[in-house]
Amino acid sequence: MQRGYAPFLYFVAVLGLEAAVQEECRIIEALQNKLTYQQRLQYMKHYFPINYTVNVQFEEVLRAANITRLRDQNVSEPSLRFLWFNVNTQVLLKIQAVLLEKHPAWEYTRDLGLLFEQLAEYENCEQNDINVCEVVEQVLSSDAGSSRKAVRPKALLDNCAKVMRMLYSESCK
Amino acid sequence: MQRGYAPFLYFVAVLGLEAAVQEECRIIEALQNKLTYQQRLQYMKHYFPINYTVNVQFEEVLRAANITRLRDQNVSEPSLRFLWFNVNTQVLLKIQAVLLEKHPAWEYTRDLGLLFEQLAEYENCEQNDINVCEVVEQVLSSDAGSSRKAVRPKALLDNCAKVMRMLYSESCK
Repeated sequence: MQRGYAPFLYFVAVLGLEAAVQEECRIIEALQNKLTYQQRLQYMKHYFPINYTVNVQFEEVLRAANITRLRDQNVSEPSLRFLWFNVNTQVLLKIQAVLLEKHPAWEYTRDLGLLFEQLAEYENCEQNDINVCEVVEQVLSSDAGSSRKAVRPKALLDNCAKVMRMLYSESCK
Repeated sequence: MQRGYAPFLYFVAVLGLEAAVQEECRIIEALQNKLTYQQRLQYMKHYFPINYTVNVQFEEVLRAANITRLRDQNVSEPSLRFLWFNVNTQVLLKIQAVLLEKHPAWEYTRDLGLLFEQLAEYENCEQNDINVCEVVEQVLSSDAGSSRKAVRPKALLDNCAKVMRMLYSESCK
Protein backbone atom coordinates (compact mmCIF):
# COMPACT_ATOMS: atom_id res chain seq x y z
CA MET A 1 0.00 0.00 0.00
CA GLN A 2 1.32 3.49 -0.82
CA ARG A 3 2.11 5.49 2.28
CA GLY A 4 0.01 8.45 1.19
CA TYR A 5 -3.24 6.48 1.45
CA ALA A 6 -2.93 5.70 5.17
CA PRO A 7 -4.59 8.86 6.57
CA PHE A 8 -7.34 8.55 3.98
CA LEU A 9 -8.06 4.89 4.94
CA TYR A 10 -8.01 5.82 8.62
CA PHE A 11 -10.53 8.56 7.89
CA VAL A 12 -12.78 6.09 6.01
CA ALA A 13 -12.55 3.59 8.89
CA VAL A 14 -13.54 6.26 11.43
CA LEU A 15 -16.46 7.29 9.25
CA GLY A 16 -17.58 3.65 8.98
CA LEU A 17 -17.33 3.17 12.73
CA GLU A 18 -19.35 6.31 13.36
CA ALA A 19 -22.03 5.19 10.93
CA ALA A 20 -22.19 1.80 12.71
CA VAL A 21 -22.56 3.47 16.12
CA GLN A 22 -25.31 5.69 14.73
CA GLU A 23 -27.15 2.71 13.32
CA GLU A 24 -26.75 0.75 16.56
CA CYS A 25 -28.12 3.74 18.49
CA ARG A 26 -31.05 4.07 16.11
CA ILE A 27 -32.02 0.46 16.88
CA ILE A 28 -31.54 1.02 20.61
CA GLU A 29 -33.82 4.05 20.42
CA ALA A 30 -36.46 1.97 18.64
CA LEU A 31 -36.12 -0.68 21.35
CA GLN A 32 -36.45 1.99 24.03
CA ASN A 33 -39.68 3.21 22.42
CA LYS A 34 -41.03 -0.34 22.47
CA LEU A 35 -39.87 -1.14 25.98
CA THR A 36 -41.62 1.71 27.84
CA TYR A 37 -43.04 0.82 31.23
CA GLN A 38 -46.56 1.24 29.86
CA GLN A 39 -46.01 -1.32 27.09
CA ARG A 40 -44.21 -3.80 29.35
CA LEU A 41 -47.09 -3.52 31.81
CA GLN A 42 -49.76 -3.99 29.15
CA TYR A 43 -48.24 -6.75 27.03
CA MET A 44 -46.23 -8.65 29.62
CA LYS A 45 -48.43 -8.31 32.71
CA HIS A 46 -52.04 -7.44 31.85
CA TYR A 47 -52.10 -9.78 28.84
CA PHE A 48 -50.82 -12.80 30.77
CA PRO A 49 -52.61 -14.82 33.46
CA ILE A 50 -51.82 -13.69 37.02
CA ASN A 51 -48.53 -15.17 38.31
CA TYR A 52 -47.75 -16.76 34.93
CA THR A 53 -44.07 -17.61 34.54
CA VAL A 54 -41.76 -18.61 31.71
CA ASN A 55 -38.96 -21.12 32.29
CA VAL A 56 -35.59 -19.65 31.46
CA GLN A 57 -31.99 -20.59 32.14
CA PHE A 58 -30.49 -19.20 35.31
CA GLU A 59 -28.10 -17.08 33.19
CA GLU A 60 -31.00 -15.52 31.28
CA VAL A 61 -32.01 -13.54 34.36
CA LEU A 62 -29.60 -10.68 33.68
CA ARG A 63 -30.16 -7.86 36.17
CA ALA A 64 -28.56 -4.45 36.63
CA ALA A 65 -26.69 -5.87 39.65
CA ASN A 66 -25.02 -8.49 37.43
CA ILE A 67 -23.74 -5.75 35.12
CA THR A 68 -22.38 -3.75 38.04
CA ARG A 69 -20.55 -6.84 39.31
CA LEU A 70 -19.13 -7.64 35.85
CA ARG A 71 -18.00 -4.04 35.43
CA ASP A 72 -16.19 -4.33 38.75
CA GLN A 73 -14.41 -7.36 37.26
CA ASN A 74 -13.30 -5.11 34.36
CA VAL A 75 -15.39 -6.83 31.71
CA SER A 76 -15.40 -4.56 28.65
CA GLU A 77 -18.53 -2.66 27.62
CA PRO A 78 -18.76 -4.36 24.17
CA SER A 79 -18.75 -7.79 25.86
CA LEU A 80 -21.42 -6.69 28.34
CA ARG A 81 -23.59 -5.52 25.42
CA PHE A 82 -22.95 -8.81 23.64
CA LEU A 83 -24.11 -10.66 26.77
CA TRP A 84 -27.24 -8.48 27.14
CA PHE A 85 -28.04 -8.85 23.42
CA ASN A 86 -27.79 -12.64 23.44
CA VAL A 87 -29.60 -13.17 26.73
CA ASN A 88 -32.55 -11.05 25.60
CA THR A 89 -32.69 -12.58 22.13
CA GLN A 90 -33.20 -15.92 23.90
CA VAL A 91 -35.65 -14.46 26.41
CA LEU A 92 -37.81 -13.08 23.60
CA LEU A 93 -37.78 -16.44 21.81
CA LYS A 94 -38.94 -18.11 25.03
CA ILE A 95 -41.77 -15.65 25.59
CA GLN A 96 -42.83 -15.94 21.95
CA ALA A 97 -42.77 -19.74 22.19
CA VAL A 98 -45.67 -19.70 24.68
CA LEU A 99 -47.85 -17.44 22.49
CA LEU A 100 -50.03 -18.24 19.53
CA GLU A 101 -49.89 -15.78 16.63
CA LYS A 102 -53.32 -14.46 17.57
CA HIS A 103 -52.36 -13.69 21.15
CA PRO A 104 -52.54 -9.90 21.69
CA ALA A 105 -48.90 -9.81 22.86
CA TRP A 106 -47.52 -11.85 19.96
CA GLU A 107 -46.94 -8.95 17.56
CA TYR A 108 -45.27 -6.88 20.28
CA THR A 109 -42.87 -9.73 21.07
CA ARG A 110 -42.22 -10.36 17.37
CA ASP A 111 -41.41 -6.65 16.80
CA LEU A 112 -38.93 -6.67 19.67
CA GLY A 113 -37.34 -9.84 18.26
CA LEU A 114 -36.94 -8.18 14.85
CA LEU A 115 -35.18 -5.19 16.41
CA PHE A 116 -32.81 -7.56 18.22
CA GLU A 117 -32.10 -9.31 14.92
CA GLN A 118 -31.09 -5.96 13.40
CA LEU A 119 -28.75 -5.40 16.33
CA ALA A 120 -26.86 -8.67 15.79
CA GLU A 121 -24.14 -7.32 13.50
CA TYR A 122 -23.14 -4.59 15.96
CA GLU A 123 -22.53 -6.79 19.02
CA ASN A 124 -19.41 -8.87 19.59
CA CYS A 125 -17.58 -10.44 22.47
CA GLU A 126 -14.03 -9.28 23.19
CA GLN A 127 -11.64 -12.21 23.45
CA ASN A 128 -10.21 -10.99 26.76
CA ASP A 129 -13.61 -11.49 28.40
CA ILE A 130 -13.48 -15.25 28.10
CA ASN A 131 -15.88 -15.86 31.01
CA VAL A 132 -18.61 -13.69 29.54
CA CYS A 133 -18.15 -15.21 26.08
CA GLU A 134 -18.55 -18.67 27.61
CA VAL A 135 -21.74 -17.69 29.42
CA VAL A 136 -23.15 -16.48 26.09
CA GLU A 137 -22.26 -19.81 24.47
CA GLN A 138 -24.04 -21.64 27.25
CA VAL A 139 -27.14 -19.44 26.88
CA LEU A 140 -27.17 -20.01 23.12
CA SER A 141 -26.74 -23.77 23.42
CA SER A 142 -29.76 -23.91 25.80
CA ASP A 143 -27.61 -26.21 27.91
CA ALA A 144 -29.88 -28.79 29.48
CA GLY A 145 -27.48 -28.98 32.43
CA SER A 146 -28.03 -25.33 33.31
CA SER A 147 -30.42 -24.73 36.19
CA ARG A 148 -33.82 -23.28 35.29
CA LYS A 149 -35.83 -20.47 36.78
CA ALA A 150 -39.53 -19.66 36.48
CA VAL A 151 -39.74 -15.91 35.85
CA ARG A 152 -42.67 -13.63 35.01
CA PRO A 153 -42.51 -12.22 31.48
CA LYS A 154 -42.67 -8.63 32.71
CA ALA A 155 -39.73 -9.20 35.09
CA LEU A 156 -37.70 -10.49 32.13
CA LEU A 157 -38.43 -7.42 30.00
CA ASP A 158 -37.93 -5.11 32.99
CA ASN A 159 -34.41 -6.52 33.26
CA CYS A 160 -33.95 -6.12 29.51
CA ALA A 161 -34.97 -2.42 29.59
CA LYS A 162 -33.00 -1.51 32.72
CA VAL A 163 -29.77 -3.16 31.57
CA MET A 164 -30.18 -1.60 28.13
CA ARG A 165 -30.27 1.86 29.72
CA MET A 166 -27.13 1.03 31.75
CA LEU A 167 -25.22 -0.15 28.69
CA TYR A 168 -26.22 2.41 26.06
CA SER A 169 -27.14 5.65 27.83
CA GLU A 170 -23.56 6.95 27.52
CA SER A 171 -22.76 5.83 23.99
CA CYS A 172 -26.21 6.67 22.56
CA LYS A 173 -26.95 10.02 24.19
CA MET B 1 -110.46 -19.30 49.49
CA GLN B 2 -113.67 -19.15 47.49
CA ARG B 3 -114.04 -22.06 45.10
CA GLY B 4 -114.63 -19.85 42.06
CA TYR B 5 -111.05 -18.47 42.22
CA ALA B 6 -109.31 -21.83 41.69
CA PRO B 7 -109.30 -21.91 37.86
CA PHE B 8 -108.23 -18.27 37.80
CA LEU B 9 -105.28 -18.91 40.14
CA TYR B 10 -104.28 -21.97 38.13
CA PHE B 11 -104.35 -19.83 34.99
CA VAL B 12 -102.18 -17.18 36.67
CA ALA B 13 -99.73 -19.87 37.83
CA VAL B 14 -99.45 -21.31 34.30
CA LEU B 15 -98.88 -17.83 32.91
CA GLY B 16 -96.18 -17.21 35.53
CA LEU B 17 -94.44 -20.49 34.71
CA GLU B 18 -94.50 -19.73 31.02
CA ALA B 19 -93.03 -16.28 31.60
CA ALA B 20 -90.27 -17.87 33.71
CA VAL B 21 -89.43 -20.40 30.96
CA GLN B 22 -89.34 -17.59 28.41
CA GLU B 23 -86.97 -15.55 30.56
CA GLU B 24 -84.76 -18.59 31.19
CA CYS B 25 -84.62 -19.24 27.44
CA ARG B 26 -83.80 -15.60 26.72
CA ILE B 27 -80.77 -15.90 29.02
CA ILE B 28 -79.78 -19.24 27.44
CA GLU B 29 -79.95 -17.62 24.00
CA ALA B 30 -77.72 -14.79 25.19
CA LEU B 31 -75.29 -17.37 26.57
CA GLN B 32 -75.36 -19.27 23.29
CA ASN B 33 -74.49 -16.05 21.43
CA LYS B 34 -71.52 -15.53 23.74
CA LEU B 35 -70.35 -19.14 23.66
CA THR B 36 -69.90 -19.53 19.90
CA TYR B 37 -66.91 -21.60 18.78
CA GLN B 38 -65.28 -18.46 17.41
CA GLN B 39 -65.45 -16.63 20.73
CA ARG B 40 -64.34 -19.63 22.77
CA LEU B 41 -61.38 -20.04 20.41
CA GLN B 42 -60.42 -16.38 20.56
CA TYR B 43 -60.86 -15.63 24.25
CA MET B 44 -60.06 -19.00 25.79
CA LYS B 45 -57.35 -20.31 23.46
CA HIS B 46 -55.69 -17.53 21.45
CA TYR B 47 -55.66 -15.12 24.42
CA PHE B 48 -54.02 -17.61 26.81
CA PRO B 49 -50.46 -18.95 26.72
CA ILE B 50 -50.07 -22.27 24.90
CA ASN B 51 -50.98 -25.26 27.13
CA TYR B 52 -52.15 -23.00 29.96
CA THR B 53 -54.42 -24.77 32.43
CA VAL B 54 -56.73 -23.78 35.26
CA ASN B 55 -57.03 -25.96 38.37
CA VAL B 56 -60.61 -27.08 38.93
CA GLN B 57 -62.30 -29.72 41.05
CA PHE B 58 -62.72 -33.09 39.43
CA GLU B 59 -66.53 -32.57 39.46
CA GLU B 60 -66.20 -29.29 37.59
CA VAL B 61 -65.24 -31.16 34.42
CA LEU B 62 -68.84 -31.79 33.35
CA ARG B 63 -68.92 -33.39 29.90
CA ALA B 64 -71.75 -34.46 27.62
CA ALA B 65 -70.95 -38.08 28.55
CA ASN B 66 -71.64 -37.32 32.22
CA ILE B 67 -75.08 -35.97 31.35
CA THR B 68 -75.87 -39.06 29.27
CA ARG B 69 -74.88 -41.30 32.18
CA LEU B 70 -76.94 -39.27 34.68
CA ARG B 71 -79.93 -39.36 32.35
CA ASP B 72 -79.59 -43.16 32.21
CA GLN B 73 -79.81 -43.07 35.99
CA ASN B 74 -83.11 -41.16 35.67
CA VAL B 75 -81.83 -37.91 37.10
CA SER B 76 -84.43 -35.24 36.30
CA GLU B 77 -83.76 -32.53 33.72
CA PRO B 78 -84.15 -29.66 36.26
CA SER B 79 -81.51 -31.25 38.50
CA LEU B 80 -79.16 -31.72 35.53
CA ARG B 81 -79.58 -28.04 34.64
CA PHE B 82 -78.95 -27.11 38.27
CA LEU B 83 -75.74 -29.15 38.17
CA TRP B 84 -74.61 -27.58 34.88
CA PHE B 85 -75.46 -24.08 36.14
CA ASN B 86 -73.51 -24.44 39.38
CA VAL B 87 -70.50 -26.18 37.86
CA ASN B 88 -70.11 -23.47 35.22
CA THR B 89 -70.67 -20.61 37.64
CA GLN B 90 -67.67 -21.97 39.56
CA VAL B 91 -65.66 -22.60 36.40
CA LEU B 92 -66.14 -18.98 35.30
CA LEU B 93 -65.07 -17.70 38.71
CA LYS B 94 -61.92 -19.81 38.46
CA ILE B 95 -61.07 -18.55 34.99
CA GLN B 96 -61.75 -14.96 36.03
CA ALA B 97 -59.55 -15.41 39.11
CA VAL B 98 -56.44 -15.85 36.92
CA LEU B 99 -57.13 -12.70 34.86
CA LEU B 100 -56.43 -9.06 35.61
CA GLU B 101 -59.19 -6.61 34.65
CA LYS B 102 -57.11 -5.38 31.73
CA HIS B 103 -56.64 -8.85 30.25
CA PRO B 104 -58.42 -8.99 26.84
CA ALA B 105 -60.52 -11.98 27.96
CA TRP B 106 -61.61 -10.46 31.28
CA GLU B 107 -64.68 -8.64 29.98
CA TYR B 108 -65.85 -11.70 28.06
CA THR B 109 -65.57 -13.87 31.20
CA ARG B 110 -67.31 -11.19 33.31
CA ASP B 111 -70.20 -10.97 30.79
CA LEU B 112 -70.67 -14.75 30.88
CA GLY B 113 -70.64 -14.64 34.69
CA LEU B 114 -73.35 -11.95 34.71
CA LEU B 115 -75.58 -14.07 32.46
CA PHE B 116 -75.10 -17.02 34.83
CA GLU B 117 -76.07 -14.78 37.75
CA GLN B 118 -79.34 -13.91 35.95
CA LEU B 119 -79.99 -17.60 35.48
CA ALA B 120 -79.73 -18.41 39.22
CA GLU B 121 -83.41 -17.97 40.10
CA TYR B 122 -84.56 -20.41 37.41
CA GLU B 123 -82.41 -23.40 38.41
CA ASN B 124 -83.21 -25.75 41.30
CA CYS B 125 -82.34 -29.26 42.39
CA GLU B 126 -85.16 -31.76 42.74
CA GLN B 127 -85.08 -33.47 46.11
CA ASN B 128 -85.32 -36.94 44.54
CA ASP B 129 -81.94 -36.42 42.88
CA ILE B 130 -80.07 -36.48 46.17
CA ASN B 131 -76.74 -37.55 44.60
CA VAL B 132 -76.68 -34.70 42.11
CA CYS B 133 -77.69 -32.18 44.79
CA GLU B 134 -74.80 -33.41 46.94
CA VAL B 135 -72.31 -33.06 44.10
CA VAL B 136 -73.47 -29.46 43.65
CA GLU B 137 -72.94 -28.79 47.36
CA GLN B 138 -69.44 -30.19 47.10
CA VAL B 139 -68.67 -28.03 44.08
CA LEU B 140 -69.98 -24.93 45.86
CA SER B 141 -68.04 -25.62 49.05
CA SER B 142 -64.80 -25.91 47.01
CA ASP B 143 -64.09 -28.98 49.10
CA ALA B 144 -60.35 -29.15 49.69
CA GLY B 145 -60.66 -32.95 49.86
CA SER B 146 -61.92 -33.15 46.27
CA SER B 147 -59.31 -34.16 43.73
CA ARG B 148 -58.10 -31.46 41.35
CA LYS B 149 -57.62 -31.40 37.63
CA ALA B 150 -55.61 -29.04 35.43
CA VAL B 151 -57.82 -28.21 32.46
CA ARG B 152 -57.41 -25.74 29.59
CA PRO B 153 -59.86 -22.81 29.74
CA LYS B 154 -61.22 -23.55 26.26
CA ALA B 155 -61.94 -27.19 27.18
CA LEU B 156 -63.94 -25.95 30.18
CA LEU B 157 -66.08 -23.61 28.08
CA ASP B 158 -66.39 -26.24 25.33
CA ASN B 159 -67.98 -28.51 27.94
CA CYS B 160 -70.18 -25.65 29.12
CA ALA B 161 -71.49 -24.94 25.60
CA LYS B 162 -72.00 -28.57 24.61
CA VAL B 163 -73.86 -29.53 27.79
CA MET B 164 -75.97 -26.37 27.54
CA ARG B 165 -77.12 -27.44 24.08
CA MET B 166 -77.97 -30.90 25.43
CA LEU B 167 -80.01 -29.53 28.30
CA TYR B 168 -81.89 -26.65 26.69
CA SER B 169 -82.31 -27.42 22.99
CA GLU B 170 -85.68 -29.08 23.60
CA SER B 171 -87.19 -26.66 26.11
CA CYS B 172 -85.83 -23.50 24.41
CA LYS B 173 -86.48 -24.25 20.77
